[in-house]
Amino acid sequence: MDWDQVWIDLNIATMNPDNSEPYGAIRDGVIAIKNDRIVWMGSRADLPEFDVMATPVYRGNGGWVTPGLIDAHTHLIFGGNRANEFEMRLNGASYEEIARAGGGILSTVKATREATEGELFELGRKRLNALAKEGVTTVEIKSGYGLDKDTELKMLRVARELGKHHHVDVKTTFLGAHAVPPEYKDRANDYVDLVVKEMIPAVLEENLADAVDVFCENIAFDLPQTQKVLATAKARGLDIKLHAEQLSNMGGSALAANLGAKSVDHIEYLDEEGVKAIAASGTCATLLPGAFYFLRETKLPPIDLLRQYQVPMVIASDYNPGSSPICSTLLMLNMGCTLFRLTPEEVLAGVTRNAAKALGIESKVGVLDVGMQADFCLWDISSPAELAYSYGRNPLVHVVKGGKLIHQ
Amino acid sequence: MDWDQVWIDLNIATMNPDNSEPYGAIRDGVIAIKNDRIVWMGSRADLPEFDVMATPVYRGNGGWVTPGLIDAHTHLIFGGNRANEFEMRLNGASYEEIARAGGGILSTVKATREATEGELFELGRKRLNALAKEGVTTVEIKSGYGLDKDTELKMLRVARELGKHHHVDVKTTFLGAHAVPPEYKDRANDYVDLVVKEMIPAVLEENLADAVDVFCENIAFDLPQTQKVLATAKARGLDIKLHAEQLSNMGGSALAANLGAKSVDHIEYLDEEGVKAIAASGTCATLLPGAFYFLRETKLPPIDLLRQYQVPMVIASDYNPGSSPICSTLLMLNMGCTLFRLTPEEVLAGVTRNAAKALGIESKVGVLDVGMQADFCLWDISSPAELAYSYGRNPLVHVVKGGKLIHQ
Ligand SMILES: [Zn+2]
Ligand SMILES: [Zn+2]
Repeated sequence: MDWDQVWIDLNIATMNPDNSEPYGAIRDGVIAIKNDRIVWMGSRADLPEFDVMATPVYRGNGGWVTPGLIDAHTHLIFGGNRANEFEMRLNGASYEEIARAGGGILSTVKATREATEGELFELGRKRLNALAKEGVTTVEIKSGYGLDKDTELKMLRVARELGKHHHVDVKTTFLGAHAVPPEYKDRANDYVDLVVKEMIPAVLEENLADAVDVFCENIAFDLPQTQKVLATAKARGLDIKLHAEQLSNMGGSALAANLGAKSVDHIEYLDEEGVKAIAASGTCATLLPGAFYFLRETKLPPIDLLRQYQVPMVIASDYNPGSSPICSTLLMLNMGCTLFRLTPEEVLAGVTRNAAKALGIESKVGVLDVGMQADFCLWDISSPAELAYSYGRNPLVHVVKGGKLIHQ
Repeated sequence: MDWDQVWIDLNIATMNPDNSEPYGAIRDGVIAIKNDRIVWMGSRADLPEFDVMATPVYRGNGGWVTPGLIDAHTHLIFGGNRANEFEMRLNGASYEEIARAGGGILSTVKATREATEGELFELGRKRLNALAKEGVTTVEIKSGYGLDKDTELKMLRVARELGKHHHVDVKTTFLGAHAVPPEYKDRANDYVDLVVKEMIPAVLEENLADAVDVFCENIAFDLPQTQKVLATAKARGLDIKLHAEQLSNMGGSALAANLGAKSVDHIEYLDEEGVKAIAASGTCATLLPGAFYFLRETKLPPIDLLRQYQVPMVIASDYNPGSSPICSTLLMLNMGCTLFRLTPEEVLAGVTRNAAKALGIESKVGVLDVGMQADFCLWDISSPAELAYSYGRNPLVHVVKGGKLIHQ
């Protein structure tokens, strides 16, 4: 066997659904890597002979290996922060007072427009490092705090640059239709025209986005506007996804499902018809417990229906300055269990196998198997459930990304 | 000025109540240290001359300094973990099934009894490191998973050893009356006799505890039993505190207040009479948002009454394997704001000034002032509110403990 490296003395949560053990587990397993791929994986008892003198062997000390974590929904590039607004609100300020003080999403838009690419890169790098330290190896990053062509492109360029300069892979999503910008107040249709006719073509020209997203909500864009943006993106060959049913049941999820969306995200208010629609289209349901927590939402997403219709559930941080300022994918595992009553296995699938599906990269990552990319984490834990049960003492020992051992 | 080191180019959240600025702030401040003490503090404009060639000068790059964080309520020494029970419950197991599988507090008692001092020390050290990485410089650690004399003493010895071998100061609390052990099933009074007549004297003989605590609740110890333990401890010169009013309004807080307790902890069910009682005795109210979150409690502690009667509010992690497996003091700042609607300044006081008061060490730490111990953190933040607003990208830059710069 001509291998580059071998990992032994570990248990593997493969997350492979073809393996009927919980977590697709292989106890006392071995992973062999050649170039960036897993070329052998199985029980130590079945390990074929290999050149032990020529092959580096890494030991897991009985810990657990999982696929590298995938955070499939973040807004981690933005200028400024909203600590002031947070503090004002807790000191009793009204929404009007906060708006007068320049708070809300427009304060982030202003700070992001004013920031240089270099500044945004540096802010993004620190945040990405925080996720990487907890085992994230792939992240999705959305634009959406520019709301003008130049800034939207700037955000996406920064996201692409981050992907080039960091071991974490970055998938980018154009979210020009995140909010109606102040320049288009009461002219949302005109803004949607701009998104469709100028922004999407410009994004495509520089190949800046892998997907297009819209915030479909009564405070953002309605169904016809959403349809227009997503249909345009789809016609141009981009993946589509949707912020849907977060505050009310608008029918956005069904619309997105009919267009073949990869995921619908938030979906606290999704009803059974909507669940059926996304189940039929193979669309993932991305659940965002950080926003649920931070906004003190009480309406739970329809977990039982999602289970019943076997919709793949994704868990993501939704890291953003307004509604989920928690830059931690690992904490979302605990929140997914504690707040949404998901099982530890469901939340782990939500940041591995299903997250890969939501990003359209499930043929490469999200499951550990022969032929898959060698993206994995070694954890100092005695059962995979510990990743969801506890938080704070980071149990990450090693990260392997594309076959490379990452030093961090 | 004969100083050992000087810190400049920073803002100081002194948390000194004599300073009427929010957070007792000093902008563009300077801290001078001699031995383990702050010997000068003020605006750079007022800085006296000092020997700039002979004195190391550290620059804060415009960040903020706060007092070193104090986590005044943890149970961070224990064996095993309860991930299995967590997973069983989320998979639909009943309490009976979990108990039959050896779950609940008794599983932790069993694992703690079986662990050696060396094993407990190593587990505790890792957990303490996690807190220290987020700026904790003083921690309280309780016993209470032994429920027999030898194991209770073992836990306290490990806690004392941790304090000797770590830069974080450790205050220890004997919590023999945490639960009725299986050996004393239906004989709680006999167990209380053991606690009072054998355990407390043994704890005193080895000087293993700074305080004594009891879990006063209908599932643990009643008022007469609580009274007996606390009065014994007080008579022997130990500080006292109480787990009180967590699940029901038993009147434990008033009892503890009448005995001069340093703090009453949890207190979701405390009523106005109870708040008046602790206000009159100068007892702190220790709020534990991690347990509130993890147990999905909905009854909020009486925050408005605590404010009205000016009870010092403490925020702590309650880190423990059963009801708060979140080993992060910093995350409690966000949870205190998000879940309890405290202000960022209140939660910061809760892990500094008021936490020091709850541990009886307020003459040394918890506030930055001339004459106080030089325990402080430098944070890469532009306002102190950021510590509570956001979580995940750890903004800790430096820790100074007793005048020493800590490398971690
Ligand atoms: Zn989002
Ligand atoms: Zn406790």
